[in-house]
Amino acid sequence: MLNIQTLRYEDGRLIVLDQTLLPGEEKYIELDTKEDVFEAILSLRVRGAPAIGVAAAYGIVVALRNEEAGDYDELLRKFGELKSYLAGSRPTAVNLSWALERMERKILSLGDGLCMNPSWRQEREYIEEELLQEAQEIHKDDQKACLAMGEHGLSLLKRGMGLLTHCNAGALATTGYGTALSPIHLGQERGCDFKVFADETRPLLQGGRLTAWELNKSGVDVTLICDNMSSVVMKRGLVDAILVGCDRMAANGDGANKIGTAALAILAKEYNIPFYMFVPTSTIDMEISSGEEIIIENRAEEEIYRLWYKEDMAPQGIKVSNPAFDVTDHRYISAVITEKGIVTPPYGENLRKLVK
Amino acid sequence: MLNIQTLRYEDGRLIVLDQTLLPGEEKYIELDTKEDVFEAILSLRVRGAPAIGVAAAYGIVVALRNEEAGDYDELLRKFGELKSYLAGSRPTAVNLSWALERMERKILSLGDGLCMNPSWRQEREYIEEELLQEAQEIHKDDQKACLAMGEHGLSLLKRGMGLLTHCNAGALATTGYGTALSPIHLGQERGCDFKVFADETRPLLQGGRLTAWELNKSGVDVTLICDNMSSVVMKRGLVDAILVGCDRMAANGDGANKIGTAALAILAKEYNIPFYMFVPTSTIDMEISSGEEIIIENRAEEEIYRLWYKEDMAPQGIKVSNPAFDVTDHRYISAVITEKGIVTPPYGENLRKLVK
Repeated sequence: MLNIQTLRYEDGRLIVLDQTLLPGEEKYIELDTKEDVFEAILSLRVRGAPAIGVAAAYGIVVALRNEEAGDYDELLRKFGELKSYLAGSRPTAVNLSWALERMERKILSLGDGLCMNPSWRQEREYIEEELLQEAQEIHKDDQKACLAMGEHGLSLLKRGMGLLTHCNAGALATTGYGTALSPIHLGQERGCDFKVFADETRPLLQGGRLTAWELNKSGVDVTLICDNMSSVVMKRGLVDAILVGCDRMAANGDGANKIGTAALAILAKEYNIPFYMFVPTSTIDMEISSGEEIIIENRAEEEIYRLWYKEDMAPQGIKVSNPAFDVTDHRYISAVITEKGIVTPPYGENLRKLVK
Repeated sequence: MLNIQTLRYEDGRLIVLDQTLLPGEEKYIELDTKEDVFEAILSLRVRGAPAIGVAAAYGIVVALRNEEAGDYDELLRKFGELKSYLAGSRPTAVNLSWALERMERKILSLGDGLCMNPSWRQEREYIEEELLQEAQEIHKDDQKACLAMGEHGLSLLKRGMGLLTHCNAGALATTGYGTALSPIHLGQERGCDFKVFADETRPLLQGGRLTAWELNKSGVDVTLICDNMSSVVMKRGLVDAILVGCDRMAANGDGANKIGTAALAILAKEYNIPFYMFVPTSTIDMEISSGEEIIIENRAEEEIYRLWYKEDMAPQGIKVSNPAFDVTDHRYISAVITEKGIVTPPYGENLRKLVK
């Protein structure tokens, strides 16, 4: 069984693995105020779209416990304030607002259940219990989706294969087996003996700091390389498939993911290596027709020449371009793996069938 | 005029820009013993095949001045010892032994000139002067080769073009305008207004530390990117040509260069961008028929997860692969630019014509 736990709920507190300390230190921190939860998401202590969603769901349960409220309406108002507050921790994270809205639908649905309990105190306990159960449902749904993607992904792989991955689409980005790394963890449990190459993923080094740590901890045979070395391992015949995550997929199958993914897909085509993108259906955006409509976020220049370094690694005042994501053209994607099944080209048609 | 001086000879001392301190500090160090010269080459204070060759030529002049010798034969023996000593500073650098052998041919040729001077003291002064002149010839030859590559390269480019380069094949790697960066420096003097993207070049960061510094100092419009971002700038139409150096080229045109070069060449083909390799003829090895015969050096694992960092950037004990070079297949190379002219496919035939 997977021995990595990104987060858990325990006695009114949300307990998360502080990923900013990895790989040096494996430390869990306890969050029991709204400020704690906000800061943990903002500072990337908990990260990865699915994990952020679950953290926000538990986070609002934890934070609501601290709020005074004389009746249901007041509690609802406090809930609304907390929801807006937490949603601001990472405004662009789709799963964050999605999870908070699911929690809001839950508390709204409980309005009908009022007066069933003899006192407001008991009624409030009942509401809190129901909200906790909803958060636990969100948590379980994420774990199930991870497992399903793992099983589907594994059906495309064979024992002993060499695999290459980029960034961290793993257990650390979810509350389960991960997305792109799920078949690797699952394969490890079943003795599949995969040999995995992890790109370090500049500038934030999620590959070196997180993926290498996570796979190593699970006993997977993992080798860390710099991003510019992936072509060499492919050319040497060490890679039988490439497995990556996805941040947002357009209706035509173009997929935005961590910077560097698109280059891997082109190299994979050149070397005739299958390129698989792992895409929870919540990530497929049928409202946008192609990747050209996906806006690529530019991040701080300092990430490239200062962030991790003892000294500046580029001259003062140098121009820097730091796009955080790139879009992989659907032509280069061999298959899209979702929790509902595997989608192959033509993506326009087949993605529509899947998500409708 | 170019305002970067990698090294110079002055009053019996070799003065080199300490590249290990770049980009933070621009400091020249004076070398006046054999140990100084050895250490400067070993520690990459002076680096780049052409620059190392020139440094070794001056280095043996500097070091020989400190040696006692009663006659020509004794001086020759001391010269041989110095040559072996300096050649060991970077055993795999072809230009190092090439330059030392050229200096040795010079001192051997002077055996015939003995007895032309009235005393051994005067004779020795004469020998030292001749050796210095030979080193200065090597120096001038390098500068001329750089300029010639610059002119040839420039003939392939147009004003205002976007260019992408990798690692440092610049003034800092030579004693002149550089190899791949020579047309950029030359173009800058002629108002060509190029927009250059420099890959940072993990793990040693020669792009961020050296190329960005060098081009910025020359007033070139340069933008630093991580290696995994090159695909994005190409896709956005910002790159009209890719210019890279070469460490060793086989007779069929396969070229070994800094890790990451081969991937750029494949991406360039995908985006229909010309890919130019700058190759001094001394770098072409007609003894090897293809790139498969080129042995790729693996460097220390620490370079990837520790070297520049405040803390370890990967888990303790993780496997790391760190190939220093890769081989670009000749199919992806649009043209080979040498000091003798531009070579186009078929390379097998046309390289042979050039170097014979």
